[in-house]
Amino acid sequence: MTRHKRPEQAPITSPRSDRVRRIAALSGRSARRRTGLIRADGPQAVRSLLAESPDTVRELFLTERTSAAHPELAELGRAAGVSARLVPEHVVRALVRGDQEGAGDDVPSPQGAVAVAERPALGWEAAVHALPAAGPVTVVVLCEVRDPGNVGTIVRTADAAGADLVLLTEDSADPFAPKAVRSSAGSVFHLPVVPGAPVQPLFAALRARDVALAVTSGYAATDLFCLDLPPRLAWVLGNEARGVDAAALAAADHAVRIPLAGRAESLNVATAATVCLFETLRRRPDRP
Amino acid sequence: MTRHKRPEQAPITSPRSDRVRRIAALSGRSARRRTGLIRADGPQAVRSLLAESPDTVRELFLTERTSAAHPELAELGRAAGVSARLVPEHVVRALVRGDQEGAGDDVPSPQGAVAVAERPALGWEAAVHALPAAGPVTVVVLCEVRDPGNVGTIVRTADAAGADLVLLTEDSADPFAPKAVRSSAGSVFHLPVVPGAPVQPLFAALRARDVALAVTSGYAATDLFCLDLPPRLAWVLGNEARGVDAAALAAADHAVRIPLAGRAESLNVATAATVCLFETLRRRPDRP
Repeated sequence: MTRHKRPEQAPITSPRSDRVRRIAALSGRSARRRTGLIRADGPQAVRSLLAESPDTVRELFLTERTSAAHPELAELGRAAGVSARLVPEHVVRALVRGDQEGAGDDVPSPQGAVAVAERPALGWEAAVHALPAAGPVTVVVLCEVRDPGNVGTIVRTADAAGADLVLLTEDSADPFAPKAVRSSAGSVFHLPVVPGAPVQPLFAALRARDVALAVTSGYAATDLFCLDLPPRLAWVLGNEARGVDAAALAAADHAVRIPLAGRAESLNVATAATVCLFETLRRRPDRP
Repeated sequence: MTRHKRPEQAPITSPRSDRVRRIAALSGRSARRRTGLIRADGPQAVRSLLAESPDTVRELFLTERTSAAHPELAELGRAAGVSARLVPEHVVRALVRGDQEGAGDDVPSPQGAVAVAERPALGWEAAVHALPAAGPVTVVVLCEVRDPGNVGTIVRTADAAGADLVLLTEDSADPFAPKAVRSSAGSVFHLPVVPGAPVQPLFAALRARDVALAVTSGYAATDLFCLDLPPRLAWVLGNEARGVDAAALAAADHAVRIPLAGRAESLNVATAATVCLFETLRRRPDRP
């Protein structure tokens, strides 16, 4: 926390400067991969980042208005060894302009706070190994969930339901895309969220850690509300349009059906995650 | 179903024609109000509209590819007395171009199907009156839920959880905005969804129909999972940022807290709706 960082100190006034462009480019997966950096947009995500991972934060930009409305942001920045830089509204707007990944969606009403940080380095094997060796465990595995908004929403729900870990397969959206970070309302910094896991080795590693695998399927015979849920459980959720694939379905220990009462043909993946995770929470003896 | 309608029969080839512009304008609330028409975009929403409300459909546009992939659409159109018109991909793209309400968000990847229909005319008083007089009832009331995507997602969840009715207050997003229709995956045509209700008269009407009112609040003493849920219940959900207002909180029969186990400060409104509605479904003796 006492380590001091020296970002470029020149004032930023032009939304077209190279520096602004480099930060805006972090909307794209390739720039995040190349630089090892991520961006958090908006006071809620920036606050969680500064509070949870202060040592990773490199730069902090605030508008005067947001700095006054959220004085804790500059304070958290100071504690992290990062000076908040006051920038005009139109510069913040330029900093968050997306160049990829839901381009149309990626320009929110500017909320006057942007931070740049090092990307979390935790790998999937270490994350699985770090799960508690005994007692209840809840894990979420996202297989080919493509929409960053869905990924962020599910991370937020997983956090609220007390999950220990969220893992994503290689073909899922990046949970550190700015849109996912924003949809997570900062939860992506509250619990370990680890992309890039290969499906079958991941399943084997979870089993070796005594974590059972459950998938949801509209064709499953077992009703979620009737299943005796194992205390150490990973919920495996699949693609928005197709659900989990046949290989994941075959590899799972449990396939459950979420009962549908009306005429809806299916649930949104984030809705299915919510039903499963809160039913798991409801049954946990240690729940709040 | 045998009533035949005569839309303009001239071929549509220009994405800039007046006719295309008039249909694209239905992305905006003012055009929907002025014309009394709504638009459904994409095969799923169009299919639900044609199947559930055939008499309201005025026009149906399909690309050749979508017509081949979803032959049921043209068939349902014929049964509704509407001839599907084949149009090129770029015309469909122009038909769904939004002019208001989440402009950036409102241009999805075109899915080759668009329908124009009369807006459902059911008023909130008639809708409440039409609820079953006895037995379990589940109602959803959205107060000042502003995002059409959230509204549509909640309607889809309400449908899946077997809700009887979704009501929206005057200051909520329009559930018949194309973005809400799309997010509902057609569910907006599966159950009565009625906007424009004034809060206090609505609450009184629901009570007169023997329906109790429950709100969620982070400050409530009662845990959702511990409350003895009344069999006739309306879930009242509030604004994305602020939740339900003080007046709704004061007027409710039950205030419940959704337990939060992790470090998330709150739930997304659609997530909260999912937890409440599926917990209600779980306890219904008549559930599937």
